[in-house]
Amino acid sequence: MSSLEQIRHSFAHLLAAAVGELYPDAKNTIGPAVDNGFYYDFEFPEGKAPSDKDLKDIEKRMRRILPSWKGFEKVSSSAAEAKTRFSNNPYKLELIDEIARKGEEITLYKSGEFVDLCRGGHADVADMKADAFKLSRVAGAYWRGNEKNKMLTRIYGFAFASKAELEAYEKLVEEAKKRDHKKLGKDLGLFVFSELVGAGLPLWTPKGTLVRDILDSYVWELRKSKGYMRVAIPHITKKDLYEKSGHWAKFSEELFKITTREGHLFAMKPMNCPHHTQIFDSEPRSYRDMPQRYAETTMVYRDEQSGELSGLSRVRSITQDDAHVFCRENQIEQEMFAVWDIIDTFYGTFGFKLRVRLSRHDPDNFDKYIGSKETWQRAESQIKAIIEKRGAKDVIDGKGEAAMYGPKIDFIATDSLGRTLQVATIQLDFNMPERFGLVCTNEKGEKEGIVMIHAAIMGSIERFTSSLLEHVAGNLPLWLSPIQVKIAPVKESNFERAEEVGAIFKKAGIRVDVDTTPAGFGKKVREAKDLKIPYTVIIGDKDMENGVVTLESRDKGKIGEKTVEEARDLLVEEATAKR
Amino acid sequence: MSSLEQIRHSFAHLLAAAVGELYPDAKNTIGPAVDNGFYYDFEFPEGKAPSDKDLKDIEKRMRRILPSWKGFEKVSSSAAEAKTRFSNNPYKLELIDEIARKGEEITLYKSGEFVDLCRGGHADVADMKADAFKLSRVAGAYWRGNEKNKMLTRIYGFAFASKAELEAYEKLVEEAKKRDHKKLGKDLGLFVFSELVGAGLPLWTPKGTLVRDILDSYVWELRKSKGYMRVAIPHITKKDLYEKSGHWAKFSEELFKITTREGHLFAMKPMNCPHHTQIFDSEPRSYRDMPQRYAETTMVYRDEQSGELSGLSRVRSITQDDAHVFCRENQIEQEMFAVWDIIDTFYGTFGFKLRVRLSRHDPDNFDKYIGSKETWQRAESQIKAIIEKRGAKDVIDGKGEAAMYGPKIDFIATDSLGRTLQVATIQLDFNMPERFGLVCTNEKGEKEGIVMIHAAIMGSIERFTSSLLEHVAGNLPLWLSPIQVKIAPVKESNFERAEEVGAIFKKAGIRVDVDTTPAGFGKKVREAKDLKIPYTVIIGDKDMENGVVTLESRDKGKIGEKTVEEARDLLVEEATAKR
Repeated sequence: MSSLEQIRHSFAHLLAAAVGELYPDAKNTIGPAVDNGFYYDFEFPEGKAPSDKDLKDIEKRMRRILPSWKGFEKVSSSAAEAKTRFSNNPYKLELIDEIARKGEEITLYKSGEFVDLCRGGHADVADMKADAFKLSRVAGAYWRGNEKNKMLTRIYGFAFASKAELEAYEKLVEEAKKRDHKKLGKDLGLFVFSELVGAGLPLWTPKGTLVRDILDSYVWELRKSKGYMRVAIPHITKKDLYEKSGHWAKFSEELFKITTREGHLFAMKPMNCPHHTQIFDSEPRSYRDMPQRYAETTMVYRDEQSGELSGLSRVRSITQDDAHVFCRENQIEQEMFAVWDIIDTFYGTFGFKLRVRLSRHDPDNFDKYIGSKETWQRAESQIKAIIEKRGAKDVIDGKGEAAMYGPKIDFIATDSLGRTLQVATIQLDFNMPERFGLVCTNEKGEKEGIVMIHAAIMGSIERFTSSLLEHVAGNLPLWLSPIQVKIAPVKESNFERAEEVGAIFKKAGIRVDVDTTPAGFGKKVREAKDLKIPYTVIIGDKDMENGVVTLESRDKGKIGEKTVEEARDLLVEEATAKR
Repeated sequence: MSSLEQIRHSFAHLLAAAVGELYPDAKNTIGPAVDNGFYYDFEFPEGKAPSDKDLKDIEKRMRRILPSWKGFEKVSSSAAEAKTRFSNNPYKLELIDEIARKGEEITLYKSGEFVDLCRGGHADVADMKADAFKLSRVAGAYWRGNEKNKMLTRIYGFAFASKAELEAYEKLVEEAKKRDHKKLGKDLGLFVFSELVGAGLPLWTPKGTLVRDILDSYVWELRKSKGYMRVAIPHITKKDLYEKSGHWAKFSEELFKITTREGHLFAMKPMNCPHHTQIFDSEPRSYRDMPQRYAETTMVYRDEQSGELSGLSRVRSITQDDAHVFCRENQIEQEMFAVWDIIDTFYGTFGFKLRVRLSRHDPDNFDKYIGSKETWQRAESQIKAIIEKRGAKDVIDGKGEAAMYGPKIDFIATDSLGRTLQVATIQLDFNMPERFGLVCTNEKGEKEGIVMIHAAIMGSIERFTSSLLEHVAGNLPLWLSPIQVKIAPVKESNFERAEEVGAIFKKAGIRVDVDTTPAGFGKKVREAKDLKIPYTVIIGDKDMENGVVTLESRDKGKIGEKTVEEARDLLVEEATAKR
């Protein structure tokens, strides 16, 4: 059985063959396999490039050619021979020259009538199923990704080992599109962007801010129970802080820089640890004061490039639920386990499954990091021992995934669509405390170097919110919904009762929308659905006669008649239990 | 009776006369009256300037000269005559030339043997009491305040109408020094500064952050009851937002500016209103949605000059408890009264007395503002009517104190030392909504322009905290104290009981410090005093035998024996009542 990558790569050849037949003037360039299929970049004569609506015809031609292929036949060739064959294709000529310059072998592959310059790595033709691929879209792409080069036409396709797999994938894409947090954020009115403020700088509406605040309060509640204390720092600093921390040397490009009117160089903080060291270091600490656990939810800023920004998943203003534990070396395990407990509880609440990655340094790129090899080995062996002691299964090896200052335990969540996302992180740091000279006085009255644990639970509220919205398809659980109940009176004679019921719910701390607008009943119920409000309370004449309300659940459907108190208690219980 | 200003100005002459006798080479320059007395700037020959320890001698000489003065005799003089008299004093020559250039009269005043160039405005010599003035300190000052000019020596003095008033003032200064929030902040461990982070950028410790958070929660609780909703915005924006709002043209110098790696110009926000308009404007609003009340506690940034920074009272990172109400014109009164209610409740809690200032525009400097004269008149007459309807007494007329976009009701508090401070503000703004084109659809289906009310309760948490600390001399009320109770066991055999009692208090939500350190009992009680902890619970053998604790109050002294439950309930009740 051929590998998926071989199959996808082979379909790229088939695409080039079909385009060659249908568009004889097209010049094919490069066509690799990608995550869900393949693409191929072509130069078409001006105005002759295919568009999305032409993809069906190209697909048809691919299916017609495929049966004629028996295999991929390797043809070794001299550079001169290859250049003759591709004499009217400047892209291939450029590639041939490059391969020749490196002294590598020039290989062509022939399948049916089609010949392409290629390194190899093809499927058995029998594994290329005519019903397991599909062309998806046409896009522009610069030759070799460089915007100074000519703009080519890229044709994308999906390709899998079987029709069933392709269909499953298409369903996933369809579902993911419906769940796109950018769309959901707009539909549910959670956040907006403004052209005047700029890209990557979300503005949170009252509803979205409620969601943020409730999430943050939950994390804080968990942290408070573990002895954390809140601190507060400004969003800027003199350059000096980052020179001392080492960030200036390694990350200067991503910093937003400010020149003050007096000519000093400041930066916006891209992380909080250096500031927090200054609070720890502001007075002498005894072993009795350790650990010091500082938590702060605060925005950090990174000068991301415009092209990389996307909804809430990649922003320039990032709200971190950050924390730093300053502790002694013999307290590392207890403190890391405490964070791990919080992470398990928090993600468990949302039904995210977690896997652990040990993110260690890349010995071949040691200049990315601060500190000595010895310190890194010490930190990594400790973090490894902690992961083992915790009994984590299926630990992923994250070579080169460490932070600048130390190794990390990263948590990888799997969402309801089976997609993986990096979420929480616990980081062990011997280096920053050393650079800042952080110490405590130990039992013997001596100065003792301390360590820092960096720990974020959501990581970034923006990214977590985007992941959560997609995970639950916008159906936020009751405790997190900005509006928890819509009260929909059937007609105007029920309005007064609706207000009464609303007041009873509000008094119990439930977030209620009593809809006494002139809109019809049907519209009110539809709006509750559109806004994905967890519960709708319907009040009609019969309900009033019987002294009840009719309760409907977004997730469980019709619940039926309840007294107001029953309905209220049911909701309070569910919200309190965070179900 | 002469005015205080006349008396103070006259003492400046007396100072110059005494310096002239004691330091014949000194050149006197300018000597005005100030808030608490007077100063006079002199040029002394290099190395000959007096220092603080010489002030007593100068004072003595002033007292010796004073009886010889009978009055201030005006001597009109031509420029040429005056220049001859002051031929060896380049400062006076410069002044004489200036007066002459303006075509004004040159006047000299003679008292005793001393003659000075002066505009006039002197006291009866009988009102200059020898025991009602005192020289306070020596400082450096540039000639005419310009750092390009020569540095002169400034001698400051206090002067009042009577000895009693001078003594009262000195006592106030002494008290204010003890209450200096910079000292209290350090003693109580509330905030720190770091040289690496920079001046004007406070870092809030866990204790200080608790105080901030409790204050902010209190304001939020009051706002929530009036229908406010929280929003969240980033700390930066494209320049475009401030071009539209008008801030770029008027305040560009005070903005921290950022050039991104892609070359765009961003700014850190010095206020939140323009961002908040973008949330309001992100969807169509009907009259049914009005008012929209947005609240947000967030840091704003101003590029203040280093020399102007001081503790928490003048910082570069300012935490505003900001709010903006977007409402219809007929909702202004109700919304402004709602804010006024919050302000009265909030400041009443701390025993601050409030006066109101109507801060209106300065018609002679109209280019400081945005909007038309007509709009300003409309806004000012509305705000005046509201102040009248509220029945505010002793309203201060604040000509020229308006915001860029509209008139304000500013609240001026008087603290326990009788000092006045500007605190809360309510601002009425027709201009910003117009610039951003903010509208709602009214009952007739037409677009209707709306207005904005800007309202901060604390104004800046930094400045409010500094004022509050000085107002209460660091004795924060129970509900606001980071540590509410210190439990001080008398000896080690009482430690276990202390932990038990601490647990009972903690369970009731009381912030407790159970002191089971090896330090002696006396030291523990002293530390509670130094940290101004509201209550100390003492547990000795006798308390344990009797099943009680001994309660001591910071403010009320010894309270005596109480059962643990009694003590707990007493504290919970006081904290809940915010007494």
